[in-house]
Amino acid sequence: MKIAVLGTGTVGRTLAAALSEHGHEVTVGTRDPGATLGRGAADPNGYPAWQTAHPRIGLAAFADAAAGAELVVHASSGLAALDVLGAAGAANLAGKVLLDVANPLDFSGGFPPRLVPVDTDSLGEQVQRAFPDAYVVKSLCTVNAAVMVDPAKVGGGEHTIFVSGDDPAAKETVAGLLREFGWRDVLDLGGIETARGQEMMLSNWLRIASAIGTYDFNVKVVR
Amino acid sequence: MKIAVLGTGTVGRTLAAALSEHGHEVTVGTRDPGATLGRGAADPNGYPAWQTAHPRIGLAAFADAAAGAELVVHASSGLAALDVLGAAGAANLAGKVLLDVANPLDFSGGFPPRLVPVDTDSLGEQVQRAFPDAYVVKSLCTVNAAVMVDPAKVGGGEHTIFVSGDDPAAKETVAGLLREFGWRDVLDLGGIETARGQEMMLSNWLRIASAIGTYDFNVKVVR
Repeated sequence: MKIAVLGTGTVGRTLAAALSEHGHEVTVGTRDPGATLGRGAADPNGYPAWQTAHPRIGLAAFADAAAGAELVVHASSGLAALDVLGAAGAANLAGKVLLDVANPLDFSGGFPPRLVPVDTDSLGEQVQRAFPDAYVVKSLCTVNAAVMVDPAKVGGGEHTIFVSGDDPAAKETVAGLLREFGWRDVLDLGGIETARGQEMMLSNWLRIASAIGTYDFNVKVVR
Repeated sequence: MKIAVLGTGTVGRTLAAALSEHGHEVTVGTRDPGATLGRGAADPNGYPAWQTAHPRIGLAAFADAAAGAELVVHASSGLAALDVLGAAGAANLAGKVLLDVANPLDFSGGFPPRLVPVDTDSLGEQVQRAFPDAYVVKSLCTVNAAVMVDPAKVGGGEHTIFVSGDDPAAKETVAGLLREFGWRDVLDLGGIETARGQEMMLSNWLRIASAIGTYDFNVKVVR
């Protein structure tokens, strides 16, 4: 599948690399490709070094990346989501599956971050309202980037990932990608409203990580 | 141990019965014992029928129940917590472990309920602030009443329960009770501030229950 991954941070890069490894044609979307490639050229952890190591992955402006894709992944920060997706362009998202993996974290007050919105709304719903012609699916926001693309790295993969969205076919498309990553327990929570539950897991996720000393974990729904 | 369970609903009764079965001397606290025993006398699910079936469990006014107890369990509704504990009396809670199992659910807008407070505060913290001389421990609010007292009922008990609180000894006392119920993975999240994470699990808990068709489940932290 032709996939655009919007976001050049750890989450975007990790998803882009994994999707490419699984045979997809991946383009990373950024605001200004020239600036992205010019920043941190000497930094082993910078984008240019990563780009060199992943020559099959393209880099394009948000709108160009989205225009050429069949499926778009939002992997920038939660508070930037509507701005980034606006730059991608509603017309370039219309009729496509839009996988949102971000949590709406506001770090302006320090750590732990606040969730904005929380409880009575969610980023997933905000994105769906802002782009009504896209098929928004919320998933992967309950684990870190490493676990997103390699669930077997924790407990042999015996844990649960959630999907929320209004369109069953879009959720099945995303579930297919998740299975390529190795996810076996993909739990469909229902409509995009259920993204509230996924995003609110963040609060306990942060505390659990602190208690057990690693971000490499997940929860399994035991029933 | 002499334990007061404040609250006569399903959660209060379930905890009271289980604690009594495990050998504790349990008194249920209510606002007006006469009214509680006089209400629904002909109802097989009413408090009087339950009281008859549990003759070793006492019933007393909130303050009397708390005064005679070494450990107090808050098991009324979340929004009533400060009122109920105020009726129990700060002096009767001082120096004691106060186990709060409630979620601050506001159903005034229908289902799903809102959490009030959420994210930047928690009921656990509110209770600790209101009763600074009590040793507040938040736990059990992430599962339903049946699972609270019988974790083996789900997946052989292979799942996780959380404790939050500022006093390590108080958390260990609560963990001891949890182990009596059969909990094996008791995860100490840290101070009472971490109650935010536990309470916010409620949002996804409701959606998971809807998706899998039962409230008899829990999450296991896989690491």
